[in-house]
Amino acid sequence: MSKLVGNLIFGQSGGPTAVINASAAGVFTEALKQDCIPRVFGAANGIKGILEEKFYDMGSEGAYELELLKTTPSSALGSVRYKLADADEDETDYKRLLEVFKKYDIRYFLYNGGNDSMDTCNKISKYMHKVGYECRVMGVPKTIDNDLAGTDHCPGYGSAARYVATATMEVYLDARVYDTPMVCILEVMGRNAGWLTAATALATYKGAGPDLIYLPEIVFDVDKFLKDVKEAYDKNNGKVIVAVSEGIKDKDGKYISEYGSDLSKEKDSFGHAQLGGTAQVLASIVKEKLKCKTRSIEFSLLQRCAAHCGSKTDVEETFMAGQLAVRYATEGITDQMVAYERENGPEYNCDFKLVNLSTVANAEKKVPLEWITPNGAGLTQDFIDYALPLIQGASSPPLEEGLPRFAKLKKVLATK
Amino acid sequence: MSKLVGNLIFGQSGGPTAVINASAAGVFTEALKQDCIPRVFGAANGIKGILEEKFYDMGSEGAYELELLKTTPSSALGSVRYKLADADEDETDYKRLLEVFKKYDIRYFLYNGGNDSMDTCNKISKYMHKVGYECRVMGVPKTIDNDLAGTDHCPGYGSAARYVATATMEVYLDARVYDTPMVCILEVMGRNAGWLTAATALATYKGAGPDLIYLPEIVFDVDKFLKDVKEAYDKNNGKVIVAVSEGIKDKDGKYISEYGSDLSKEKDSFGHAQLGGTAQVLASIVKEKLKCKTRSIEFSLLQRCAAHCGSKTDVEETFMAGQLAVRYATEGITDQMVAYERENGPEYNCDFKLVNLSTVANAEKKVPLEWITPNGAGLTQDFIDYALPLIQGASSPPLEEGLPRFAKLKKVLATK
Repeated sequence: MSKLVGNLIFGQSGGPTAVINASAAGVFTEALKQDCIPRVFGAANGIKGILEEKFYDMGSEGAYELELLKTTPSSALGSVRYKLADADEDETDYKRLLEVFKKYDIRYFLYNGGNDSMDTCNKISKYMHKVGYECRVMGVPKTIDNDLAGTDHCPGYGSAARYVATATMEVYLDARVYDTPMVCILEVMGRNAGWLTAATALATYKGAGPDLIYLPEIVFDVDKFLKDVKEAYDKNNGKVIVAVSEGIKDKDGKYISEYGSDLSKEKDSFGHAQLGGTAQVLASIVKEKLKCKTRSIEFSLLQRCAAHCGSKTDVEETFMAGQLAVRYATEGITDQMVAYERENGPEYNCDFKLVNLSTVANAEKKVPLEWITPNGAGLTQDFIDYALPLIQGASSPPLEEGLPRFAKLKKVLATK
Repeated sequence: MSKLVGNLIFGQSGGPTAVINASAAGVFTEALKQDCIPRVFGAANGIKGILEEKFYDMGSEGAYELELLKTTPSSALGSVRYKLADADEDETDYKRLLEVFKKYDIRYFLYNGGNDSMDTCNKISKYMHKVGYECRVMGVPKTIDNDLAGTDHCPGYGSAARYVATATMEVYLDARVYDTPMVCILEVMGRNAGWLTAATALATYKGAGPDLIYLPEIVFDVDKFLKDVKEAYDKNNGKVIVAVSEGIKDKDGKYISEYGSDLSKEKDSFGHAQLGGTAQVLASIVKEKLKCKTRSIEFSLLQRCAAHCGSKTDVEETFMAGQLAVRYATEGITDQMVAYERENGPEYNCDFKLVNLSTVANAEKKVPLEWITPNGAGLTQDFIDYALPLIQGASSPPLEEGLPRFAKLKKVLATK
């Protein structure tokens, strides 16, 4: 089969991770080697950059800077949250994309993101097929949430998990320096899936982690929570560490973070659900009900951009996923996402496979309920066995004057 | 001069740092080598452990675990915040200390902490001298606040500064992935001295740091702040990063964090000064006044326990300070704190010296006003030149299964 000759464009979409640029490094270095791809473009702010004809000529970048992308957090090209309408309802964006693809002879479209981005990919692929424009569309996975269907785990998760587990171990030690009681509540990202919050169980596995861990997979009951905390408090001399997912909800589907404004109205003690605040709200409740000192810590953006505490395994797999997406596309594959498959056996070994974009687009993989301990506030050894291989090896950027040297792209705007 | 023969006790006091245990490692390894010191004790929770006769026999600990203390954050022996009364007013504690010192033949008392702890040291030294009990008292400095008098910088500052600067660079990249405006406000520890907040200027120096930095050394004016933010917002396409010290106050001496409860009363939008909240309060004000998206991030405990992102320079100096405190004491020195002196010249070189405990006990060293830029919202090159050498070299704990291996002390309780 003869290779499809044409240019490639790659875009980043959704919330960034510590390794999202490692995918970009894989895509760009591989694409720049391919004879069938004369020009390689990086879209500014994902699909928006393509619609606005704003993208960079990646051939202008130096090899060292592309290499540095592997350890540069955040989306180097800029990201976007943009939902494409269904083509049946509104073709405007699709027509514009086709116009740009034709103008720049783009025959390879690679998109990096989570399930929303795979949905975008899928829609574009279907449209191009429908209008008979030959174009290979490949999804490159990414998310600290680890919630993509069809893949054993997701690029970005291992590094976020390694940072969260490491920081949790450190906070565990810090939070017990005084011989006075304190309930410390850590808030971890994850709106619907608790994978990253579950990573705090790795700290517990190492003897320095939360006593209680609450994931959004289980309905959150404030009374049970207070009972759990009280029990841990009595057992551990008043030292309690709790980890919660930002997305925990009560039986009525109300986010616990939303309790904040109620509390505020009731007794003017606290407010503003909008501030993230799940841990703050719970700390406020614990303080009020159990009359003890509390502290809430939100890992906030730190957990998704901590490239200085990345997982080498994650970085390497992520880079390879990017490379493979290009190779598969040049070999004729389209409408697929590169995915990870864990080999059977006692040793961890990660293989790559392909899954249909449509499989990924409309699904969300949650933590299996059987990996949550019967008390609903911990993880089983099965989870540890799953997650531990993903955080192996330390990855961090090279240092310059003691601080990270991140990639500095020239970002030369591409012209026709 | 013949050496004073007797046992040594070492205690940790005040808020911990990423390297406080490196001082302990220096003290213990050095003391265990000294012939004139038959037994080495580590006080549980500082002065409280001595009063309660609860301390550990450090000779029972393995060499590897003592070595690991260098990269183990938080106070391994436990810390305390305990103010000794003036001996003139209430001798109870002093009499008890003397009793314990006599019972265990303690002739060397080394105490690790900030200015409050140096005050404790000083008082004990004076009392023992007054009652004629021969005892060498040495202070070992420690604080991420970097506010101790008589020393060029403080053990713990370099590591906290390195973490804060690194995390700030990462957040800087993360906070600008979308092409939509956002004002991101970072809150850094430091109640009265702005040294650690100033460390975010190292990120700015590397091209990825705050546009505006506010220290407690300068009176904080909300109107000027809003004007500054608006200017930066207009200049940078709506992307603004601000760093603030938790301890900034207005012209009436009111903490900005206390504005939270006022805001809450006024318009039920926000509350609870007690939550740290300086960044939250300011984000809330910016959102309200400038009608833009904001995010507040509090580095919280993470900034003082991030041993995984420590400064090698800091760890090594801190270890040596501990060693030297023991050596000086065995050589007859008492009533002094080990301090750092920076040698003159283009190369950074740190020497050690001694300062009187009384000098340190009643003073607080702030960021020199001439190192703050004329607009009151940035640091000059003089600060960069001062701080940069302190964060050189990466220090992190050895890994075990991809996670830090921290010291595990046996903590064998000492008996007479």
